[in-house]
Parts: sequence; C-alpha cells; structure tokens
Amino acid sequence: MNILDLIYKKRDGGKLSREDIRYFVEGYTEGSIPDYQASALLMAIFFEKLDEEETYELTMAMRDSGDIADLSAISGIKVDKHSTGGVGDKTTLIVAPIAASAGVKIAKMSGRGLGFTGGTIDKLEAIPGMRTSLETGEFYELVNRLGMSVIGQTAHIAAADKKLYALRDVTGTVENTGLIASSIMSKKLASGSDSIVLDVKCGNGAFMEHIEEAEELARAMVKIGESAGKRIAAFITDMNQPLGRAVGNSIEVAEAASLLRLEEPDPELLELSLYLSGAMIFLGGKASGFHEGRELAREKLESGAAYEKLREFVSAQGRDASVLSDPEFGRKAKYSADYVYHGPDAFVSAISTREVGLASQHAGAGRARKDESIDPEAGIYLEAKIGSLLKDGSIAARVYSNDEGKLRTALSELKGAYRFSSSEPE
Amino acid sequence: MNILDLIYKKRDGGKLSREDIRYFVEGYTEGSIPDYQASALLMAIFFEKLDEEETYELTMAMRDSGDIADLSAISGIKVDKHSTGGVGDKTTLIVAPIAASAGVKIAKMSGRGLGFTGGTIDKLEAIPGMRTSLETGEFYELVNRLGMSVIGQTAHIAAADKKLYALRDVTGTVENTGLIASSIMSKKLASGSDSIVLDVKCGNGAFMEHIEEAEELARAMVKIGESAGKRIAAFITDMNQPLGRAVGNSIEVAEAASLLRLEEPDPELLELSLYLSGAMIFLGGKASGFHEGRELAREKLESGAAYEKLREFVSAQGRDASVLSDPEFGRKAKYSADYVYHGPDAFVSAISTREVGLASQHAGAGRARKDESIDPEAGIYLEAKIGSLLKDGSIAARVYSNDEGKLRTALSELKGAYRFSSSEPE
Repeated sequence: MNILDLIYKKRDGGKLSREDIRYFVEGYTEGSIPDYQASALLMAIFFEKLDEEETYELTMAMRDSGDIADLSAISGIKVDKHSTGGVGDKTTLIVAPIAASAGVKIAKMSGRGLGFTGGTIDKLEAIPGMRTSLETGEFYELVNRLGMSVIGQTAHIAAADKKLYALRDVTGTVENTGLIASSIMSKKLASGSDSIVLDVKCGNGAFMEHIEEAEELARAMVKIGESAGKRIAAFITDMNQPLGRAVGNSIEVAEAASLLRLEEPDPELLELSLYLSGAMIFLGGKASGFHEGRELAREKLESGAAYEKLREFVSAQGRDASVLSDPEFGRKAKYSADYVYHGPDAFVSAISTREVGLASQHAGAGRARKDESIDPEAGIYLEAKIGSLLKDGSIAARVYSNDEGKLRTALSELKGAYRFSSSEPE
Repeated sequence: MNILDLIYKKRDGGKLSREDIRYFVEGYTEGSIPDYQASALLMAIFFEKLDEEETYELTMAMRDSGDIADLSAISGIKVDKHSTGGVGDKTTLIVAPIAASAGVKIAKMSGRGLGFTGGTIDKLEAIPGMRTSLETGEFYELVNRLGMSVIGQTAHIAAADKKLYALRDVTGTVENTGLIASSIMSKKLASGSDSIVLDVKCGNGAFMEHIEEAEELARAMVKIGESAGKRIAAFITDMNQPLGRAVGNSIEVAEAASLLRLEEPDPELLELSLYLSGAMIFLGGKASGFHEGRELAREKLESGAAYEKLREFVSAQGRDASVLSDPEFGRKAKYSADYVYHGPDAFVSAISTREVGLASQHAGAGRARKDESIDPEAGIYLEAKIGSLLKDGSIAARVYSNDEGKLRTALSELKGAYRFSSSEPE
C-alpha cells in the first residue's frame, strides 16, 4: 500500500477500505506520511466525500490512535453529551447536574475553547479553586459518589484527530460532513461513555448554517455511534442568536447557576436544557422514554436537586460553592460598558451570533491561538434578544473586560450585531 | 491576501486573479507557502480546473519565477519544438537538422529524462564527446553559424514549475490540463524562442490516452502561446506503439541518423518528422505555408542537406561525427537477446507502448529517480511493429544492455508487450 495510491483512489471517486484508512491514519500520526500528501487526500475527500462505512472506519482508526478511557470502575450507565459549538452555550454546566441528580453517571472529558469563548474547562476554571485535571482514581470516585465529574480531555485522546484537525484548519478541508463527524465521534468514543447525546447547532452562529447540513451531520454521527454499539440521540438546535443571555466564562457559569435556581431563566436555554437532560436521563436508563426523562429533568430542576448537585460538584472538585450564589459573580471585571439603544421604539429583529461571539472574544473571553490566555471575567450580557422591544435609552447589552481597550473594541463590535425593526418579528 | 483564502476561493468554484496566482507562485517558490497548503490548492484545482485566463496567468508567473533566455544575439526567427513525451521519440534529432538546413534558427534547451528512456540531452550524450552544457556565447555562436544547437535546460528556467511539478508528482495532482499546459509552456516561454511547434502525443504510451484530452491540452497550450505573442502550432500524434523502431539512447541516435540518410526509414517516423519540421520551417518564416514548409523539409532530407546539418552539429558540439555512419553504433552493448516469435503465422495486432517503455527502462536506458545514471547503450529495437507478419522463428524484437540481469528482465517484459492475431489488423 502506498499513500499516493490512496490519493488517486479517492480522487477518482473510489472507496477507501478499512485497511486503506488505517494505513493513512497510522502513517500520518507517526509521521511517515507527510502533511502535503495528507492535505491532498483531505482535499480529495472534501470533493468526493466519505460514505457511511468510510466515515465509520476513519472514526475508529482515529479513536484507536490514542488513549481509550476505561470507565468500568464507574458503576451504572455513563452518558456523555456533546455540542458542535455555538455562542453562549453553557448547557453542560446545566444538564450534567440535572442528569446526575436523576441518577445518571456523567464522566465527562471536555476541551478548552478556541474562538469566541472558552470551552467548558475554561468556564469551570473561572470558578476560584476549581480543579480540572484529576487523577483517574479521583475522577472515578467523584462520578461514583456524586454522579458527575468534568475534567480536561488529555492530549492522548484521539491523537490522530488532533494532528489531522490542525492540518484541516490550515488547508481549507474542515467543512466536510464525514470529516467533522469522525473528528467529533472519535473523541466521544475514546472517552468511554455508554451513551451519547449530541446537540448539533444550526444557524448564523453555528458551524452548520443550514438545516440540511445539520441533519446530514447529525445522521452521520448517530450512524457512527450505533455502529460502535452506543445508544445515541441527536438534537438539531437553533443558533440564530446566542444561547441564553451570557457569553463569556464566569458570566456563563453565573447564568447556569441562576437557571438551576430557576431565577428568571431564559426560556430557550431552559427548554433546550430540559430536552438534552431528558434525553440523557432516558439513555442513562433512568426513564422509560424521552418524555418521561424530560419530566424527571423538570422535577429535579424544580425540587432544587439539580442546583444542589452543581453545588456538591463544585465543592468536591473545587474549593467552595459559595460563588454560585454570589450575585456579583460574573460581573467582577474591572471595566464594563453598556450598549444603549437610541431611536424610536423598535424590536430586535436579528442578532448576528457570529459578531456577538467575536465581540466576546475581543473583550478577552476567547482565544485565537492555543497558547493565548483568556480573561475569565470578560464577557457579554444580552439584555435584549430577538423580539425584545427597546425604547430610546434602553440598555440592549453590556460588555465586561479587565482591559479598557478591549472593552471599547468589543462594545463597538457588539453594536454592529443588532438589527432592529419597527414591527415585531415572527 | 492569504493562501487559505485562495484555497477556499478555488475550492468553492471561484476564479483566481492574476494577483492571487502571483502570490501563490512567488510564495511557494520562496518557501513562505508550505507544501501542505500548496498541495491542497493543487487538489482543489484538479477538481475545479483552471480557466483560460488562470492557466495563462499561472504560466506567466511560473515563467517569471526563474531565468528567461534572451536570444536577441541570434539573428532570425528562433523556433522551438516540444513533445509531450512518448516511447521512441527521437524527432528532435531529426527535425532540428531538417529545419536548420532550411534556414530556421533552432536554439533548443532540452531536459534529461525520467522514465522509459533518457531525454534528448541523454540521447545526445550517448554520442562520444558531445557537450550539452555550453557557455551562452558559444550557444549563440553555434546557432548563428550552423542554425542549430541543443543544450541542457538550466535549473533556473521556471524555478516554480520545477518545485510545483515535484509536489504534483507525489500528491496525485499531475493529471490536469491547466496544470500540464502551464508547466510545459512556462518552460517554453522562458526558453526565449519566437515560435513553437508542439507535438501532443496520444495513445496507450502517452500521458494523454484519449483524443479529447489531447485536443484539450493542445488547445490550452496554443491559447497560452498566442496570448504570450508567440506563433504556435500543435499536432496531435499517435502513440499507440513506439515511434520508429529504436527505443533507448545511442540506438535512437542511430535511428535518427539513418532516417536522415533515408535508409529504410520507418514510414510513421518519417511522416511525423516531415510534418513537424514542415511546421517549423513555416513558423520560422522560410515557407509561405505549412505545405510549402513540408515540401522544403522533404527537399532538405532528400538532398542530404539535413543529414549534413546533423554531422556539422555533432562535429561542432562534440568530437567527431563519424559514429553517425558507424553501422555498429547503437548496437554496442555487451549483451543482446532476441525475442523470437514461435507459433503459427500471425500479425502483430497491438503493442503495449508502456510495456516496451518499461522494458527499455529496465534494460538500463531510463532512470526512475533523478540521481540514477543510465546505460547509453541499453535499448530495444523493434523488428516487428503493428501489422508485421511473423512466422515461426521470426525475430520480433531485440534487447541490448550492458547488464545481463537487466537484459533478462527487459526481454521478458518485452514479450508481454506484443499481441498477435491471425488476421491482418486494420
């Protein structure tokens, strides 16, 4: 076998065998196949696509290229959850406590973020004293005792995916369903849970802007999961405006805690959280169907059990959980500025999610390169969302940052993200 | 501008501007654009193709990436000739003397060969004492005095093409009309002649197997040449069996000399030589039309003037021309073996040109890697060609080599190249 033969095969519309794919993934990971041949093959895949079997084989080859977590020391059904990424997505901080309080085991490995805000790990680290790198033994013990733990994903999970993704990122070969699905699923399968709930975001702030693409990706990931013997469910959810009201790190933790206390929750965020946690409860064997799962989720939320679970988790993995109820937590940045609406009465007709995300990143909440640090207190709070009625002088949104220059940049970008209309949007 | 933007643009079906193409070619040549991004762009070009303008701009950018020959010290119209490559193609050694004897100026820069046999330079070097690397002054002086000189192409001609071709070769991005046309034409334009005659080979031994592809390539090259202000003509010629009877280096020189003496010339090789040299004479301003050019070519051949021109050239650029009339020249290898036909009377119905080429290479006449040396006396002589009638015991072909093991390998490959039938082929 020869990498050039594989490039020709895919380029000319052929199908890569399991052996072909293993040869490529192993050779590329160990360095015997150079970047320039890998990128040629990836571009040929972009045009000729991967079929279901090829996508599955690529996923399994990438899963096997690194460590595979063995969660057998944790009793019960382990359920994972993954979102394809959006702006203001703090659902892990909400659905993990809900599902854990219903008896599901959540042994979650999360990543740091590149882009608009930090990842779940960055958000957790905005909580003073929070530890996100635990010894395996403590991780298992926490999940067994509390029902949940969230730690940083090690560099050795799906090593091939890490190297391939870095190459795709600089060669224009990211946007391909088979490659995206196998990248996500290789990490999920290596993380060792029994069941997986997928949240595929769709809209102007998501990777997938169109519903057809989101459905194709969701279907591809479900197929992979099923072929690998996992129970799996996927939701396609709206990302045409940021999720909830907070965008950043500590500010998103505060919103998650506040939602779990049911303090004026954002209705969309609440609904999505019940859907996802309901599915997790069902796949985790704690309800006989999805609707029953959702009802149990609502119960755990309304009884305060889910909030209590978040507090237990933060106490156990961090220092103390008191920040969760501190009304100032998430608003502690040195500088803040309001975006004040001026003009005749108007409805918010659209929000460019991407521009809000960029404003958040430029305020300091996200990083453009892996080695950059983030400002955990930087972020954005959206007072007005689509459909909100603004009067002259109303505050539409607020920006937080520990850097005054970044605050100004972010504020002006934030202003460009809103669109108004005199009539109420549908 | 950013190489990733260019990859996206081409990948998504857009058109690269002159500036885009110059940015890519210059950046890749100087090393600021890495191989892995160049190969992704090349694969995107493979799928999305280059239009006429893009092909022209790529050609000019590659032409300008290295030295451009200034032939103004040579009086008269300089005519170049290029073949896309086949097996047994020794036409340069025939048409240059014919055209030069008709008064056309041939200042030819040729390459060494990779593959089945050597290139024109390797063939010339099979003549004892032949110098293929001349100072510019001597090169101009020879062309002015004799009408022709052939030297090795320097490494500094179209430097970008050299680097890009090496990358295309290992990334499955060779087979694209725009890339092939611009690669060939960038070197031809940098070589400085006023007119160019192109011989596009088509058939089972050529790069282009189908007539449609050959026509597309010919058209693309003619367009480039015209846009660059050159007089240009292209022929599409048959390569479904080796050209002439000799395949190798000294053996091809011997066949070329023998054709110029009109000693039982192979009819196809003779006809092609008259077509090409006729076009060169016409484009070189020594005939008022192509047919008149071809008649003048025939005259120069029949009068012996063309053969005399070859002798003058070899005497001037080498030691002496006596080998040209040595009946043993081309047959001097230490070992030779006959391929003897056994069976009932049969016609040769087909010859796999590619297999004859490989047999020639394996006999020692060609190189697989640039740093390999070749055996100038290795080669093949085809006694039987398509349509020849063979009786039991007839010699179909003969192999020559200075290595007995290589001779055996080549002989057995050569036997696999012939197909027979009891009826005469059409």
